[in-house]
Amino acid sequence: MHKIFRIDMTDLKATVETVPEAWAGLGGRALTSTIVAAEVPPTCHPLGPNNKLVFAPGLLSGTAASNAGRFSCGAKSPLTGGIKECSAGGSAGRIIARLGIKAIILEGQPKGEGWYGLIVRKDGVEIVPETETLGKGNFAVVEDLTARLGEDFGVITLGPAGEHLMAVSDISVKDPDGKLRSFGRGGLGAVMGSKRVKFIAIDPEGVANLAIADPAAFKVANKAFTKTLNDHPVSGQGLKKYGTAVLVNIINEAGGLPTKNFTSGQCDHHDQISGEQMYDNIVARGGEPTHGCSVGCQIQCSQVYNDKDGKFLTSGFEYETIWALGADGLIKDLDIIAEIDNVMDDIGVDSIEVPVMFAVAMEAGLLPWGDGKRMLEMLREDIAKGTSLGRLLGGGTAAVGRAFGLTRIPVVKNQAIPAYDPRAIKGIGVTYATTTMGADHTAGYAIATNILNVGGKVDPLSNDGQVDLSRNLQIATAAVDSTGLCLFIAFPALDIPECLASVVGMLNARYGLSLTGDDVVALGKQVLKTEHAFNLAAGLGDESDRLPEFFELEPIAPHQVKWDMDPKELATFWSF
Amino acid sequence: MHKIFRIDMTDLKATVETVPEAWAGLGGRALTSTIVAAEVPPTCHPLGPNNKLVFAPGLLSGTAASNAGRFSCGAKSPLTGGIKECSAGGSAGRIIARLGIKAIILEGQPKGEGWYGLIVRKDGVEIVPETETLGKGNFAVVEDLTARLGEDFGVITLGPAGEHLMAVSDISVKDPDGKLRSFGRGGLGAVMGSKRVKFIAIDPEGVANLAIADPAAFKVANKAFTKTLNDHPVSGQGLKKYGTAVLVNIINEAGGLPTKNFTSGQCDHHDQISGEQMYDNIVARGGEPTHGCSVGCQIQCSQVYNDKDGKFLTSGFEYETIWALGADGLIKDLDIIAEIDNVMDDIGVDSIEVPVMFAVAMEAGLLPWGDGKRMLEMLREDIAKGTSLGRLLGGGTAAVGRAFGLTRIPVVKNQAIPAYDPRAIKGIGVTYATTTMGADHTAGYAIATNILNVGGKVDPLSNDGQVDLSRNLQIATAAVDSTGLCLFIAFPALDIPECLASVVGMLNARYGLSLTGDDVVALGKQVLKTEHAFNLAAGLGDESDRLPEFFELEPIAPHQVKWDMDPKELATFWSF
Repeated sequence: MHKIFRIDMTDLKATVETVPEAWAGLGGRALTSTIVAAEVPPTCHPLGPNNKLVFAPGLLSGTAASNAGRFSCGAKSPLTGGIKECSAGGSAGRIIARLGIKAIILEGQPKGEGWYGLIVRKDGVEIVPETETLGKGNFAVVEDLTARLGEDFGVITLGPAGEHLMAVSDISVKDPDGKLRSFGRGGLGAVMGSKRVKFIAIDPEGVANLAIADPAAFKVANKAFTKTLNDHPVSGQGLKKYGTAVLVNIINEAGGLPTKNFTSGQCDHHDQISGEQMYDNIVARGGEPTHGCSVGCQIQCSQVYNDKDGKFLTSGFEYETIWALGADGLIKDLDIIAEIDNVMDDIGVDSIEVPVMFAVAMEAGLLPWGDGKRMLEMLREDIAKGTSLGRLLGGGTAAVGRAFGLTRIPVVKNQAIPAYDPRAIKGIGVTYATTTMGADHTAGYAIATNILNVGGKVDPLSNDGQVDLSRNLQIATAAVDSTGLCLFIAFPALDIPECLASVVGMLNARYGLSLTGDDVVALGKQVLKTEHAFNLAAGLGDESDRLPEFFELEPIAPHQVKWDMDPKELATFWSF
Repeated sequence: MHKIFRIDMTDLKATVETVPEAWAGLGGRALTSTIVAAEVPPTCHPLGPNNKLVFAPGLLSGTAASNAGRFSCGAKSPLTGGIKECSAGGSAGRIIARLGIKAIILEGQPKGEGWYGLIVRKDGVEIVPETETLGKGNFAVVEDLTARLGEDFGVITLGPAGEHLMAVSDISVKDPDGKLRSFGRGGLGAVMGSKRVKFIAIDPEGVANLAIADPAAFKVANKAFTKTLNDHPVSGQGLKKYGTAVLVNIINEAGGLPTKNFTSGQCDHHDQISGEQMYDNIVARGGEPTHGCSVGCQIQCSQVYNDKDGKFLTSGFEYETIWALGADGLIKDLDIIAEIDNVMDDIGVDSIEVPVMFAVAMEAGLLPWGDGKRMLEMLREDIAKGTSLGRLLGGGTAAVGRAFGLTRIPVVKNQAIPAYDPRAIKGIGVTYATTTMGADHTAGYAIATNILNVGGKVDPLSNDGQVDLSRNLQIATAAVDSTGLCLFIAFPALDIPECLASVVGMLNARYGLSLTGDDVVALGKQVLKTEHAFNLAAGLGDESDRLPEFFELEPIAPHQVKWDMDPKELATFWSF
């Protein structure tokens, strides 16, 4: 029943293929990484004809499971040079799953100069020349396609940054409100742009309820699963009320909130950019403090954030973005941060990579610390328009840092380090260093156990146990990323035994299997090993599994700690 | 008798050390690479306090040996991320050798913002704050220091690009005419800049003739050696008359002259940019067609090139630079090429990296093809002044290519590929891919045997025998680079048995040794293995020993050949 849709942009031909048996039990990240590893030469140019962009719903996507609205996008990354998988919400993933499409593979490269749109329908893909939306921002593209095709189409689109093939570009997904969600990291927008595809629209005509092998068991398992989501204080309360920005004050208190390009672990104006402040603003201005990024979401960590006049400013306003602009770049005004967030969504750039890059640019003297207005100008006038300055900035954190000869460049495998300082929270340092993805907090969220006391407690300032913690989290995450479930189910999964059991129960009920928790762990391990083998063959060996040297040289306040984990201990990560 | 001068810029302290026994038999590249490998952590930031910049005369530098006026500079490269050694002529190397200094090691990093000059004297180093020459070009620095210190001082200096810590920056050396020679490749200027040293002046006071263990034998060996230099048609005639630019027509005829950013192997206007044309211009305008870069040079491949009014335009006008600007960037006017060459010397940038970068920028549409005037403007107004555009360009070929999302980026290990297309001349492709230096023709000049029939003949269009050829040349080159002899002695060394024998004779007579040719080969192997081990530990594994993918995808005219060497065959390079 399930099919793979393959679109060859060299010959502008789309074909529908049956799913090879070896891929039948895979979904989401497991499937995108397996396809990329099988079909993309690891040493190919990420923007050349031999790279492939793969979209795949998770194993539970499209079902009635709570929080199963996410899907994966994978390729060789133009930013890291290694394998990449991103997860996003929005509507498209669910529609793709309910059309019976297991994966969409976009490959080759057109010979001429023209751009294309893809219309994915139940039985195949139409490739149409596109001019209307070229140069437009993501919001305008969504508006245009909604008018052209109808309200219910799923939309996957590129902003101007993706058209410019910038390494900071992302891929956007229309959400149920017509707003945007993102495959944010690793420059996947440039890969889609290199295929000269401006958008992929998914026609919901013919969606059907997915076959469930044991509907009653599925319902029971989903109910139990949903209860754990609601019962856990993080997923059931903290994230619901304050969104992910609840972390600003928590991480500042822990001394791990990287401030002024990673020169301090605490930020004086943390109150002004906190989740609590955001909540107050939202409530006072008639926004929505709790909101879902996709159908079926229980956690509702998203929100609608309005300006002082009650006009929409942004949604999906994340801790990472707020931290990077507010603490790392010293912008004190949450409204400007929100405006920048919205502009980044529109231009189509990674809202971690770009703000961290700007903090590096501030250190280089390219713009004043905390100058959000100048940043908005550079985003709109330079990055979006592809000026020389925009091209420099569009290369990301490492490119800008190198251009100015800086030594304090917070990247791993060329990708910007997110919102937790690895000197003060050592578990996340292990994740940054070792994940196949380049610096990525979501790959193994050690903050849970280092700071939030979820899944036990490992002292954030000690190296003891951090490699094991990160490894276990990375294995579990790779499995969760393969299900289409939101990563935040990890909070109950780490603390409430019924959570993981009910996920396994849903998988068994959906496919008529009898998997155990061990099988899920085995899947996670297999995903990591597949990705790691790709990276090794691409030239990212053990020596690239390191944090930048400055973390070893510069102690950070308030704990005055350095990164001091023995590289040999770090290298044991892959012993499993 | 010999000493090592160590300058710690962190504490602004210089010390004089005795030479460790293990380093006593080393000089030039063997010594710089050994010191870098021993003292620099391979994963350190190349512009941080843990990198070191090492200068070392060769084993025969400072003696009466012909063509022994060159010295080496080594560090971890900010461009390639691996180990780097460059060789340069000029006067400083000979003076350093004749002061009994075996190596100068520059380490650490000042804490404040100030810049320094170093005055190296017989007994130690004076570290002086420097403001006068900051921001000035190399010619002005040389002029200033000549006025300040005297005509006879050796001078090693940085241009503005080095002050900006740009990856394209080089280090200049004053030559006997007060003009410039360069440690050109790999961004060594940025390493010196990161130590905040604007110049190193070498006081010749106290130079002495070096002790020669067997003066009579040395004289006999040097005479035999000099005869081979004069007898060989390349070193005795071709290079003397036309300089290295003699190659323009030869390589064009072979179909290996990369043109218009490596899209053709032949250039329509090759006659206009040939060595023959250069010679005619020089003679007609009262320049000097034959000229040496250092004392004792027999080959005299340099020249003084004047403009139409007989005014000095440039010297040391190399084939590589002329090719890169004239063929790869399509600039047809040799006078503009000469002016650009001179400006690059003044700003202090690698005259291979920068023109190849400009050809990539032309492909990206940043300036028109062949527009030398615009290039001059960008050099003077952007790179020299460090504008945003200058910062983008100053990152080099790979940085610019990535900023614009190009796939045709001619680099290996991030360093620009020089003037011979590896598809049409496969031996040099093996050298580009495998050398520890990043793409570098001088590391194993397979053109000799592929094209010039020196050292036998290996068909340039066939893969057969190329790995062995490149390996043998790289081993021999590593040894030659350790002697202080000019690399062009390789031509007679490959064809006339007395050449290598007399070099070994000079080494034995100088040091009272009884080395054989096998010992010299063993030294070359040891150097390569030391460098390779550093690169592996820095993260440059086998997968980085590859040419960019476009050489495998795009055939090149006139032979319509691709790069098609099996990576497994390439990987056998290191089996020795």
